[in-house]
Amino acid sequence: MIKPLAIGMVGYGFMARAHTNAYKRVNDFFPDLAYRPVLQAVCGRDAEKVKAFGDQWGYASHETDWRSLVCRPDIDAVDICVPNNLHKEIALAAAAAGKMILCEKPLSITTAEGKEMCEAVESAGVANTVWYNYRRIPAITLAKQLIDSGRLGRIYHFRANFLQDWTISSDVPQGGTATWRLDSTAAGSGVTGDLLSHCIDTALWLNGKIKDVSAMTETFVKERVHADTGQVQPVGIDDACAFLCHFENGSLGMFESTRYARGHKALFTFEINGENASIRWDLHDLNRLEYFEHGKDSIVRGWRTIHVTEGEMPYMNHWWVPGLSIGYEHSFVHQVADFLGSLEQGEPCQPDFRSALQTQAVCEAVLQSGKTREWVSIK
Amino acid sequence: MIKPLAIGMVGYGFMARAHTNAYKRVNDFFPDLAYRPVLQAVCGRDAEKVKAFGDQWGYASHETDWRSLVCRPDIDAVDICVPNNLHKEIALAAAAAGKMILCEKPLSITTAEGKEMCEAVESAGVANTVWYNYRRIPAITLAKQLIDSGRLGRIYHFRANFLQDWTISSDVPQGGTATWRLDSTAAGSGVTGDLLSHCIDTALWLNGKIKDVSAMTETFVKERVHADTGQVQPVGIDDACAFLCHFENGSLGMFESTRYARGHKALFTFEINGENASIRWDLHDLNRLEYFEHGKDSIVRGWRTIHVTEGEMPYMNHWWVPGLSIGYEHSFVHQVADFLGSLEQGEPCQPDFRSALQTQAVCEAVLQSGKTREWVSIK
Amino acid sequence: MIKPLAIGMVGYGFMARAHTNAYKRVNDFFPDLAYRPVLQAVCGRDAEKVKAFGDQWGYASHETDWRSLVCRPDIDAVDICVPNNLHKEIALAAAAAGKMILCEKPLSITTAEGKEMCEAVESAGVANTVWYNYRRIPAITLAKQLIDSGRLGRIYHFRANFLQDWTISSDVPQGGTATWRLDSTAAGSGVTGDLLSHCIDTALWLNGKIKDVSAMTETFVKERVHADTGQVQPVGIDDACAFLCHFENGSLGMFESTRYARGHKALFTFEINGENASIRWDLHDLNRLEYFEHGKDSIVRGWRTIHVTEGEMPYMNHWWVPGLSIGYEHSFVHQVADFLGSLEQGEPCQPDFRSALQTQAVCEAVLQSGKTREWVSIK
Amino acid sequence: MIKPLAIGMVGYGFMARAHTNAYKRVNDFFPDLAYRPVLQAVCGRDAEKVKAFGDQWGYASHETDWRSLVCRPDIDAVDICVPNNLHKEIALAAAAAGKMILCEKPLSITTAEGKEMCEAVESAGVANTVWYNYRRIPAITLAKQLIDSGRLGRIYHFRANFLQDWTISSDVPQGGTATWRLDSTAAGSGVTGDLLSHCIDTALWLNGKIKDVSAMTETFVKERVHADTGQVQPVGIDDACAFLCHFENGSLGMFESTRYARGHKALFTFEINGENASIRWDLHDLNRLEYFEHGKDSIVRGWRTIHVTEGEMPYMNHWWVPGLSIGYEHSFVHQVADFLGSLEQGEPCQPDFRSALQTQAVCEAVLQSGKTREWVSIK
Repeated sequence: MIKPLAIGMVGYGFMARAHTNAYKRVNDFFPDLAYRPVLQAVCGRDAEKVKAFGDQWGYASHETDWRSLVCRPDIDAVDICVPNNLHKEIALAAAAAGKMILCEKPLSITTAEGKEMCEAVESAGVANTVWYNYRRIPAITLAKQLIDSGRLGRIYHFRANFLQDWTISSDVPQGGTATWRLDSTAAGSGVTGDLLSHCIDTALWLNGKIKDVSAMTETFVKERVHADTGQVQPVGIDDACAFLCHFENGSLGMFESTRYARGHKALFTFEINGENASIRWDLHDLNRLEYFEHGKDSIVRGWRTIHVTEGEMPYMNHWWVPGLSIGYEHSFVHQVADFLGSLEQGEPCQPDFRSALQTQAVCEAVLQSGKTREWVSIK
Repeated sequence: MIKPLAIGMVGYGFMARAHTNAYKRVNDFFPDLAYRPVLQAVCGRDAEKVKAFGDQWGYASHETDWRSLVCRPDIDAVDICVPNNLHKEIALAAAAAGKMILCEKPLSITTAEGKEMCEAVESAGVANTVWYNYRRIPAITLAKQLIDSGRLGRIYHFRANFLQDWTISSDVPQGGTATWRLDSTAAGSGVTGDLLSHCIDTALWLNGKIKDVSAMTETFVKERVHADTGQVQPVGIDDACAFLCHFENGSLGMFESTRYARGHKALFTFEINGENASIRWDLHDLNRLEYFEHGKDSIVRGWRTIHVTEGEMPYMNHWWVPGLSIGYEHSFVHQVADFLGSLEQGEPCQPDFRSALQTQAVCEAVLQSGKTREWVSIK
Repeated sequence: MIKPLAIGMVGYGFMARAHTNAYKRVNDFFPDLAYRPVLQAVCGRDAEKVKAFGDQWGYASHETDWRSLVCRPDIDAVDICVPNNLHKEIALAAAAAGKMILCEKPLSITTAEGKEMCEAVESAGVANTVWYNYRRIPAITLAKQLIDSGRLGRIYHFRANFLQDWTISSDVPQGGTATWRLDSTAAGSGVTGDLLSHCIDTALWLNGKIKDVSAMTETFVKERVHADTGQVQPVGIDDACAFLCHFENGSLGMFESTRYARGHKALFTFEINGENASIRWDLHDLNRLEYFEHGKDSIVRGWRTIHVTEGEMPYMNHWWVPGLSIGYEHSFVHQVADFLGSLEQGEPCQPDFRSALQTQAVCEAVLQSGKTREWVSIK
Repeated sequence: MIKPLAIGMVGYGFMARAHTNAYKRVNDFFPDLAYRPVLQAVCGRDAEKVKAFGDQWGYASHETDWRSLVCRPDIDAVDICVPNNLHKEIALAAAAAGKMILCEKPLSITTAEGKEMCEAVESAGVANTVWYNYRRIPAITLAKQLIDSGRLGRIYHFRANFLQDWTISSDVPQGGTATWRLDSTAAGSGVTGDLLSHCIDTALWLNGKIKDVSAMTETFVKERVHADTGQVQPVGIDDACAFLCHFENGSLGMFESTRYARGHKALFTFEINGENASIRWDLHDLNRLEYFEHGKDSIVRGWRTIHVTEGEMPYMNHWWVPGLSIGYEHSFVHQVADFLGSLEQGEPCQPDFRSALQTQAVCEAVLQSGKTREWVSIK
């Protein structure tokens, strides 16, 4: 009775692997879904490599030109897992072909591009979502529930950062397959689009719209060898970016991202302080949610570490038993489950393109403020 | 070129789910293996339930009598995921049929049974392993490497515990499908076989043999309703068990397990103190290994928390990138990968039955000491 | 109006320093006390050293013979800060002279000695207390309040340990002034009297009487140079000691102490698990109390870390403001404050000698069990 | 042989208490100092209260007019512990009278005032220091040593914050004795002068000068009752303040302070990321320093928690033994010890007024940027 949903994957890198794993696992753990993803085709420019990827993961076929893939009648949904500068073109073609689209984040390089993409999927009427996967970490979903239930009261502060240390060495090249994230042509920006966009998506989801920003960006290593050309070239991306902001609800925001924070691998954390309660989370310990409640029982007030593994926690009744952890990849499984569920219910799967465009607008304002050294309003 | 390995799964409960997931995922993440598990058949007494399980997970067929299953010529390996009191009989039959055996822990209820099982698989010459999966948590495997490299020097102390809180309520029944672990007939013992056996397996692996034990066992809730009969019956299992011991290497051991430690869901932890360094680990934060080294740089000595997610860490180059966590289920994937690798190399996959028999002997001595209130030597 | 209380301090080592500091500070922070300690005299065999100590800390006089000190009419209270083998004789003389006694822990070397001491102070009718100072760490006092209020319900488990690493090197001597704790003549026992006694005092206070024990003791370094004689001599103390026990309230206990746990300096921790709540504490972070409550609001259950610095917490309104820590030495100030308060109220200051005798009885049973390898009942 | 240093304390509030305690304790724990503070006089407008304070703490006399105090010939050093708006006038008078000055932080309300104060003490040639006491927390002093030794290499990031939650309730008044910190007339600013100034002092000490800032300030509660008048009045202080900055060494800074971060009492933390190592610290656990070193032994890289209690750590040989904590108040004892030591050596005790003026300049730029919404350069 379960309906197949034929996936056409564009890309065979790190994210393609994470998404493919999610497609393969989702029905095992979410047996009540009405749809089952089918690995119909994978596409990449390097025929040998894309075939190897397809064989390893069980794709039924492969393509070397995404234009062919997006038009194939046996494809229901296109998953875009390629560098950011290719998102728009592929999305527009896929929408035109009437395909559903699951697009890797960030949505686009510019807000203008993003708007085109939104209009394309909306006028085509195709289901669409952007892989801001962290919303589906159970601890973050729980945070959302706690906030929405009103437990925190008026919000005063929201902070988030995403700290890494993998580009400290000046020997890391820019460009190429493995390090396109350091190439401004392919990536558009550095940490802002790659890492801060996750922080911003989470912030908008948990705390609402951002009004204005004042940012500071920095490129610590000014030149790097390009992986394709072997030439030393100026580095065009932001190595680090921090910004202050005001949220529409009156709270203050602080955000930071860098790839030069020695000792941190993927330290995505956020904290939100409300009148009555506060919440903290850290990707390195993703099963835990820190929670402080200013309750009446004052003698036992303290920050709690909630191990989000109980069956009553978001998504967790699908996995193991209390105390047993899940990992990074499960957030993708949850997003696929929710995407399939949304198809059944005929509702958008958040964040859809339109929602992700908000994140894009903040990123763009941040980059602009970093250049002009002025506060920039978000339209 | 990859060879199929046809799995016959006996049982469809929690552990069958964990193992099945591992069989399905292993080749995606370990693409160089020479074998590929095939879900050939699953077996359970309840035809409807076993069929539903098989359909959900993709088993090609199902059986309701394990005697049929273990004799099927299309089965290469039998996976035993049923209550402990059935392990021996199934294992003996499977060995007699020349099947490989992957047996859920603990190996058996008694050491005598365990010996029979060892002799059966050894005389049949079939590959065999016991699912003490925690050895394959990367942080624990790393601990093993650190210890074996001699960094710790002479060992003085080993401590381990496994604390849970799920049976505090006297409303939890004993027996039946979901709570057979509280039924002494099905389980043989309570926390000793279920939880302490994990601690002991890890201890023997990391710190060598145990010479003698002095134990204390307790049953806090003396009577419970039986899930099958509805009758209130005496509880025959140990709700809690703690023991002191001497290791053959001269170090002292302390072990404890309980299901009455409020606030702990699956707090499996261990600590080992050596002359030059110490190590700690905690299942609730399974990607982390705590490490203290008494190095010459005295001004910066401290306990380190190693986030075991770098590609150079055990197993981790098969997964994501530094900083991104894996979860509980991955330990099973690793065990399957190692089992398949061991087939290729013609070597035992540890712990095999013979190795797991050591754990059984310690468990038996512990239970005996708990009754006699005397120190008991391990033969 | 405030009454002077003339202190005669016997000893000028580490503990004498901690007590003297407490006497000097108590009235600054507890201004409502009816008594004020006066540093009347300090006593030690080495005239030069004791004078230097007295001058540094402001003692009005010094003595080289404790027999003279305890008889001086200008002394109200004798503080015994000398090796354990001298406690009894001094206490008996002080009691005979009608002096109040503040005795460093452990009370005595044997229970028999301890009984004599109890009888002496009781027949003399002099105020007496033993410096089990950790009861007055605010976090531990708070734990006592939480337990006494019934929040934990039925108690299942109590665990405590005291782990150090300072005697791992075999170059550490035994005996002499600085290392008398390694000399069995002066100390009576090793970690049992020195460290486990603190764990036991806390356990008896928080969880009630212990019925029986099964212990394991070990001496890792069998011979050490004696600091006085320069001779290599057999080591008579226990380097490590662990024991299992039953409490009278039906809960199970596990205790451990060692000076061979690399990486731990003074890791005194305890944990108590009750039906409804659990508590943990750690001397290394003494301002924090960990607390888990199995409350109805199940979605936010978690271990809380209570930073015990609010004015409503025990003793803390005498110090700074919320968030600002106190340290180790404050526990002694609190004990002096409580001792002075008890004088005003005419009540014993706990633990008095009689109460500390219970701890002594457990220590003695533990050492006996370590030798006999049998369970030993506490009378 | 030890020389008396007669202290004239202006103020009898919280800080006067902390300083007085330090004067009384310093020679007990630092017996080799050449000076001994003597509590000569305390001054406050309320005769009854100042007398009570003086009696409790042992001051030899009291005054109700600071003008009298600073001219008394029996006073060597004036300690200024009154609201910020009084610092300048008292300091100028004390300098004119040739007194040494120990001034509570922040130095002044404006930089202009601060310059006058610097010129006054410099032209008078009197010893002077500002109570930025946190520099003398041993863990922070250790951080300074690690940084100065070059272990961190090139610095990329410095972050600090100071989060509290005590003014969330709109019932907290402004002004008066207990809450003058909420009154802009008395305090000059809110969290910027009170809390961020500590973060900035630490940052300048550890990471060098700040070039420019972009700040955001907020007053969440717009009106409060004034404690003196009982009138509801507009709130003039900043409830929260955050800023971005560039350091002269090329690193990026982020700072934040608020009294609206529910769950945090005095969460002063900082983190510094260098090419080769990183450091973190947190006032709530002040005895610990977190340290990450990107060493060659890659398999055991991790954040270390250094328990800064060993005798070789800064200041710690004056206190107890490894593992035993000190608290907040000890930082003041250390500052007094260093001040007395600096007198002996004829060198300034840092931070002196001139050094603290740098912090003032940053605070002023921050407040200005908060108003103008522009980047402001520090002269």
